[in-house]
Amino acid sequence: MTTDGGSGPHGPAERPKRRGRPARTAEATGPGARERILEAARTEFAERGYDKTSIRGIAKRAAVDAALVHHYFGTKDEVFAAAIEVSFEPALVIPAVLAGGTDGLGERLARYFIGVWENPATRAPLLAIMRSALTHEAAAKVLRGFVLRRLLERVAETLDVPDPTFRAELAASHMIGIAMLRYVIKAEPLASAEPEKIVAMVAPTLQRYLTQA
Amino acid sequence: MTTDGGSGPHGPAERPKRRGRPARTAEATGPGARERILEAARTEFAERGYDKTSIRGIAKRAAVDAALVHHYFGTKDEVFAAAIEVSFEPALVIPAVLAGGTDGLGERLARYFIGVWENPATRAPLLAIMRSALTHEAAAKVLRGFVLRRLLERVAETLDVPDPTFRAELAASHMIGIAMLRYVIKAEPLASAEPEKIVAMVAPTLQRYLTQA
Repeated sequence: MTTDGGSGPHGPAERPKRRGRPARTAEATGPGARERILEAARTEFAERGYDKTSIRGIAKRAAVDAALVHHYFGTKDEVFAAAIEVSFEPALVIPAVLAGGTDGLGERLARYFIGVWENPATRAPLLAIMRSALTHEAAAKVLRGFVLRRLLERVAETLDVPDPTFRAELAASHMIGIAMLRYVIKAEPLASAEPEKIVAMVAPTLQRYLTQA
Repeated sequence: MTTDGGSGPHGPAERPKRRGRPARTAEATGPGARERILEAARTEFAERGYDKTSIRGIAKRAAVDAALVHHYFGTKDEVFAAAIEVSFEPALVIPAVLAGGTDGLGERLARYFIGVWENPATRAPLLAIMRSALTHEAAAKVLRGFVLRRLLERVAETLDVPDPTFRAELAASHMIGIAMLRYVIKAEPLASAEPEKIVAMVAPTLQRYLTQA
C-alpha cells in the first residue's frame, strides 16, 4: 500500500496539452488541478466529515474527473492523509522548526501548532479531522499513520532523549488537548487567551519533553 | 437555569413505599432508581451519542418512567452533565486530590485522570462525551459548563498562582490530549505505555502549571 500523497512524475498535468481545446479541459488537468483537488478535499472533509466525503464529491467540487483524484492520491484514505498533511505543511515547516536545534525548540513548536490552529483556513479541516478520528476508526487509523509517520517520527528522530517518539507524542497530545479546549469546547479564559500567552506557558513543557532526559 | 444534577430531598425515592405492590413499581421509584437512571444515561450517551440520546430512551433502559428522569435531572442537557459528573466523581475525588496540598498535586491529578480513563466503565462514556462535544455545540456547551464549574473552578480556587483557571485549563488540556492520542488515535508507544510511565512524565508539567507562579 502506498501512502505517498505526492503526484507522480507522469501525471496528466505533465502531458502535453493540445492548444485550442475548451478552457474547462485545461482546468481539469492543468498544473493547478492537484492543488484544487487538495483544497476541495479539505473543504469536503471539513464540511461533510470523513464518512460522508467521497472521491466523487471531491472531484466534483474541484471540477475534475474522479479518475484524476485517484491518479494523484489513490484511495479516499490517501486523499484524507494528503488533506491533513497540507494543513500542517510538515515538509515546509518541520525542518525549519527543527533546524534551530534544541535551543528554543519547545517555543518554536508551540508557536507553529498554535499558528496552524489560529489560521481559519487550516482550523476547519483540523477540527473535521479530530471529529472524524473520534467517530470513525478508519479516520483514526489514517491519522495514526499520518501523525506517527509524518510529524512525530520526524520530530522524534532528531531528539536526543530516551523514548523519543513517546516524548514527541506527549508534546503533541498537549497541543491537541489545547485545541480541543480552546477551539471546540471554548473554555474561558483559554479560548480568548492571546496565542503568545499560551506559547509562553506551554513552551517549557514541550522543551522538557523533547530535550531533557 | 438549574444545573445541579442532584436529586431533591423530596424525590419519589423518599416517598413512603406501600408494601405488597409489584416489584416493578418498587424498582421504578425505589432508592436505586436515581443510580439506575444515571447508569442508563451513561450507556445511552456512550452508545448512541449526544444527538440520538433521548430522555425517553434513558427512561426505558432504566425501566423507569420518563417523568422520573425529568424529576431527578431536569432536561437532557442536565442528564448529560450528571452523566459526565458521575464519570469523574468530582465530589468524591477532587477534594481528596486537593487535600494533600500543593506537594505532589500534579502527580495526584495525573494519576486521577489516567485512572478515570483506564477504567473501561468510565472510558466509554468519556469518549462519547468528547465525540459529542466535537459534533454538537449543545454538548460542547454542557461540557464547557461542567468542565468549568465542576472541575476546573474547583481546582483553580485552591491555587496560589496568577490566572488559576487558565492554569487549570492548560493542565486539563494535556490530560484530554493524552486521552485523544492514547485511547482514540491509539498512537504507539503512548497507547501501550504503562500508566505510571505517563504519570511520571506528566506530573511535573501539571505541577508547574498549578503551583509555579
